[in-house]
Amino acid sequence: MRVLIALGGNAMTGPDGSAAPEEQEAAITEAMQHVAHLIVDGVDVVITHGNGPQVGNLLVKNEVAAAVVPPVPLDWCGAQTQGTIGFLIMDALEVALAARGLSRRTAVVVTRTRVDADDPGFTHPTKPIGRYLPAAEAKVLVEHGQTWEDRGSRGWRRVVASPEPLEILDAVAIETLADAGFVVVGAGGGGIPVVREPGGALRGVEAVIDKDLAADLLARAVRADVLVIATDVDHALVGYGTPAQRPIERATTAEMRGHLDTGEFASGSMGPKVDAAVRFVEGGGRRATITSLHQITEAVHGRAGTVIENETRKS
Amino acid sequence: MRVLIALGGNAMTGPDGSAAPEEQEAAITEAMQHVAHLIVDGVDVVITHGNGPQVGNLLVKNEVAAAVVPPVPLDWCGAQTQGTIGFLIMDALEVALAARGLSRRTAVVVTRTRVDADDPGFTHPTKPIGRYLPAAEAKVLVEHGQTWEDRGSRGWRRVVASPEPLEILDAVAIETLADAGFVVVGAGGGGIPVVREPGGALRGVEAVIDKDLAADLLARAVRADVLVIATDVDHALVGYGTPAQRPIERATTAEMRGHLDTGEFASGSMGPKVDAAVRFVEGGGRRATITSLHQITEAVHGRAGTVIENETRKS
Repeated sequence: MRVLIALGGNAMTGPDGSAAPEEQEAAITEAMQHVAHLIVDGVDVVITHGNGPQVGNLLVKNEVAAAVVPPVPLDWCGAQTQGTIGFLIMDALEVALAARGLSRRTAVVVTRTRVDADDPGFTHPTKPIGRYLPAAEAKVLVEHGQTWEDRGSRGWRRVVASPEPLEILDAVAIETLADAGFVVVGAGGGGIPVVREPGGALRGVEAVIDKDLAADLLARAVRADVLVIATDVDHALVGYGTPAQRPIERATTAEMRGHLDTGEFASGSMGPKVDAAVRFVEGGGRRATITSLHQITEAVHGRAGTVIENETRKS
Repeated sequence: MRVLIALGGNAMTGPDGSAAPEEQEAAITEAMQHVAHLIVDGVDVVITHGNGPQVGNLLVKNEVAAAVVPPVPLDWCGAQTQGTIGFLIMDALEVALAARGLSRRTAVVVTRTRVDADDPGFTHPTKPIGRYLPAAEAKVLVEHGQTWEDRGSRGWRRVVASPEPLEILDAVAIETLADAGFVVVGAGGGGIPVVREPGGALRGVEAVIDKDLAADLLARAVRADVLVIATDVDHALVGYGTPAQRPIERATTAEMRGHLDTGEFASGSMGPKVDAAVRFVEGGGRRATITSLHQITEAVHGRAGTVIENETRKS
């Protein structure tokens, strides 16, 4: 059985969201204990991951050091985080596997994700990233072509496009290595966003791709049986914050689409996770689950978390 | 025929060594014209590359922004450059190939290189990296555990270990993809330096691995027939700066070892290139050449550049 695990930012950063190097290492080391358990269990694992806090840090460095070193575009920052996070995952996973008596090769593939240059996000960017700045500083960056929004008392914040991912361009490399027995890390941060220009050339663009929507595409491309979206809660909830609040344990894609349509899930958070999970099962995947990291082994088998299948198998 | 091309920093940065994003893109686009020509010529190409100016820029960002964002260690900076440079190479190479009517998949493998924790470089670091700083600023960084040296009128400069590369840990992933028909980029910047701890765990270390010495190891690991070290001169020279100065066109490994022993080549520059080339041929490689980027196609066939073979075939 092949499983694609999408690791959320919480698996990569400290409890307070800190992305200091030692916090990242500790969080990834912990996360890889769970992933190793799954591999020992006989599952063929492909990994993808978020990169929000890390990209935020790189953007801040860009801004603070801009007078000394030329800033690099956002797509480059994404590529940078694929290198560092992937490297940490390989080291931590190999140790976690060795501790369980298993030797498996790991690999990290630098991955581009194609988006549409005409995606509405590029004309109306809405995704806030990085830190808040005073209006005067933000306006300097606006003059350099960036979009910043007045967010009230905390100051201004940059907003970028979050375009729909269309194709994981390097999925064949990921699949080739997975088929050869590697535990592969790919499409980190949703992949480096690129557009195909009229002449056919690829060009990086400044955008943030939702890593769960990219995970759906990657999972299908590498023919994963199960998509596991690992986050910081055990289940998706309906009726959030109301007396009727309850965890969703099993649902069909139709039921989950209904919840999406009635706005049960937060748009920047659980919404895209549910959307990605539903798309995966609709696209032919056997099962998608949304759950916390410590439950992923049970979740793969449909015994924990929010399980989405075409045929519900109520227990 | 499989060829490993090691691209020097000049293939990655502007004419003045500038590593501004648009300069890097332009330089890589130009370099990939030559690489594409080689691929069209029927050669199976694996690519590695330096990252000196890029790592220098990341270190400066780290320092300048240290009060705002936690700095990351040097090995992370190396991993970051593998992401960005690899991404640019893929985009540029695919365009250059398409312009020649060829469609080939490309892939970038995040690559670790094992070094010895007891390498003398760690107790006596000698490799200068990054920018010069006034003594007062350098001393703050010394208090944080870094080694900085007084370099006279230009100020202080950081020095790090440049340990001997022992093993390209992710070479099997690179070879797997190369065997599957990908043009693979790996071991960028010589690879991310890691040491194996007594318990078996891998740990990143702050060091700079010579990319040409790493290229030799990678070339052997992926069973390359030829190692091409692309630099900014057409030949290695003997008698540099003397009336007897002449380019070396063909030489045996024994002849080149002799030149190395008598100090014909600059230690931080042509020396390691010649050393890497000699090691590759001594290790069983058919041919190594050192030449400028525009001559690589001829060089692969032994018709240009400084050609090192076990059997000299004087023309």
